[in-house]
Amino acid sequence: MNALQPPDGRSVDVVCMGMAIVDVLTHADDAFLDRHSMVKGSMDLIDTERALRIYGDMPPAIEISGGSAANTAVGIASFGRRSAFIGKVADDELGEVFAHDISAAGVTYLTPTVSGPAAAAGTARCLILVTPDAQRTMNTYLGVAASLRREDVDPALIAAASVVYVEGYLWDDPGAIEVIGVAIDAAHQAGTAVAFTLSDGFCVDRHRDAFLELISADVDILFANEVEICSLYETSDFEEAVARVSDHVRIACLTRSELGSVIITSEGERVSVPAVPADLVDTTGAGDLYASGFLSGWSAGLALDECGSMGSLAAGEVISHLGARPQSPLSELWKDHR
Amino acid sequence: MNALQPPDGRSVDVVCMGMAIVDVLTHADDAFLDRHSMVKGSMDLIDTERALRIYGDMPPAIEISGGSAANTAVGIASFGRRSAFIGKVADDELGEVFAHDISAAGVTYLTPTVSGPAAAAGTARCLILVTPDAQRTMNTYLGVAASLRREDVDPALIAAASVVYVEGYLWDDPGAIEVIGVAIDAAHQAGTAVAFTLSDGFCVDRHRDAFLELISADVDILFANEVEICSLYETSDFEEAVARVSDHVRIACLTRSELGSVIITSEGERVSVPAVPADLVDTTGAGDLYASGFLSGWSAGLALDECGSMGSLAAGEVISHLGARPQSPLSELWKDHR
Repeated sequence: MNALQPPDGRSVDVVCMGMAIVDVLTHADDAFLDRHSMVKGSMDLIDTERALRIYGDMPPAIEISGGSAANTAVGIASFGRRSAFIGKVADDELGEVFAHDISAAGVTYLTPTVSGPAAAAGTARCLILVTPDAQRTMNTYLGVAASLRREDVDPALIAAASVVYVEGYLWDDPGAIEVIGVAIDAAHQAGTAVAFTLSDGFCVDRHRDAFLELISADVDILFANEVEICSLYETSDFEEAVARVSDHVRIACLTRSELGSVIITSEGERVSVPAVPADLVDTTGAGDLYASGFLSGWSAGLALDECGSMGSLAAGEVISHLGARPQSPLSELWKDHR
Repeated sequence: MNALQPPDGRSVDVVCMGMAIVDVLTHADDAFLDRHSMVKGSMDLIDTERALRIYGDMPPAIEISGGSAANTAVGIASFGRRSAFIGKVADDELGEVFAHDISAAGVTYLTPTVSGPAAAAGTARCLILVTPDAQRTMNTYLGVAASLRREDVDPALIAAASVVYVEGYLWDDPGAIEVIGVAIDAAHQAGTAVAFTLSDGFCVDRHRDAFLELISADVDILFANEVEICSLYETSDFEEAVARVSDHVRIACLTRSELGSVIITSEGERVSVPAVPADLVDTTGAGDLYASGFLSGWSAGLALDECGSMGSLAAGEVISHLGARPQSPLSELWKDHR
């Protein structure tokens, strides 16, 4: 992978790797966040005890399949492109829900389910509070999602893909790091592009050194929002972060909410892409769906500004309703939009 | 219970008895219903094999707590009235979801969870297909919901309530019939009104004789839509059904979708109540929420036309979004509406 173009003749467009999570979504007010010492807009990892405490205090909720890279895989399938997902669920009811939903969305999902005593930790769930300002605050109980194993990654699948896309949240599973290495090695050997999302500002804080090393050594396409990229380079100056990142990756997609996104290349290109206006209901999944649009376009060999527009379109769709997966076929929205 | 008024001095307004179900909701087209030989708008009982076949073919879905009488209990709590629910879940993840949601909605829910080998049948789920015309078609796998036991009914709770409300679907659990008898005996002894919903036209077909006997012997307030009441009396003439039902119950609330409802009393009163206009998205729960509004008003001693208007308001709210439970506090909507 040296060029800015995807490899030719692959049978899969994007293999996404991440935490397999079912979202438990409800509306709450700021007082609820305060009462549980939550930082608005962030993702916090929680243990069983805290999960029970928060859930016990939550209003009635709905359950919808989620997970950052999983949402991206679904978005890519919704654009009519070929995606696969690697991530772990348990053989419980939420695991069944996750597996059903991602498969029914057209994503290839073959990761073995965790069963036996190890399944007791349960399928991961994310307690999401959507405040009246449409911000989402996430509390993730990881359960078996943090048990990715070497045998869950099929190097042949990676080699068959144009891109392998990895979420930063995976670094919260120490055992996953070796597995990600397997996937990245397979990608390098096969000329598969490596895409990576920083996931969350606090996640960057937890794993900054590992992320910096990964980005400069292995990543072709980086996704980050403004907070995350500034956190990575420990600067408050977005332009400084832009300058730094262009030395590290071939393509960086930096999203800025209603300001749209900026796409930077190692060849000095800078493309500004406007956001698609939307009635803001719930920001959950905005970054995931931006990545789905960009990678759908990029794997099809489209120009960077078109890839970015597909990202904006997908993000605009997902923030206009509750839940982090598209409710309308993105391929049709894109046809109407062009 | 002889008068048309609720008893005085009760600490609970309505105890609702029914199947405890989690809804698995998605959009589908008419071809999907045809492919699986479903009758649009009806509720079909399905076994594990058929559940797996339908679910395997269903698009991605969302999980929301449901159950007919449970939805009614939640609606009553949303009006700011005091409700309780009696119904069975298993000690599995969907059971936890059901119990959380109904308790978080403010409903008293104390029925013991099914555990041990009997829990293997799992918490009930209803696979709901919402077609583009906003009609819902339901496929219910009953699991442990059909295992109500005598000890699940506390006669003291029934005696403390103004109304005990029973759903017709419970007759699909042969073991529940004795339990309903216990509840009705407790109601009669305590002067608690007995309310009953016919639930579904096919349900009436399955249990017509039992329902006719129950209605003439035990029911004070009957809820039915046009199809159900005509099915009960095996007539296609709504007015004939109206004439028959007024001999059998003190109050009959007959709902007619966009035509509103007709309330008939044994004293010869006939009150027509208009529907509340709504942007129709999903009709799931319309009848359940009508009953919640009517009983909220009736247990507060309001006039029949006001009770009916509260029913119309609640039904209008629930059909304007996906899912069978209110998304806005009905007490506030009612304040604004009056």
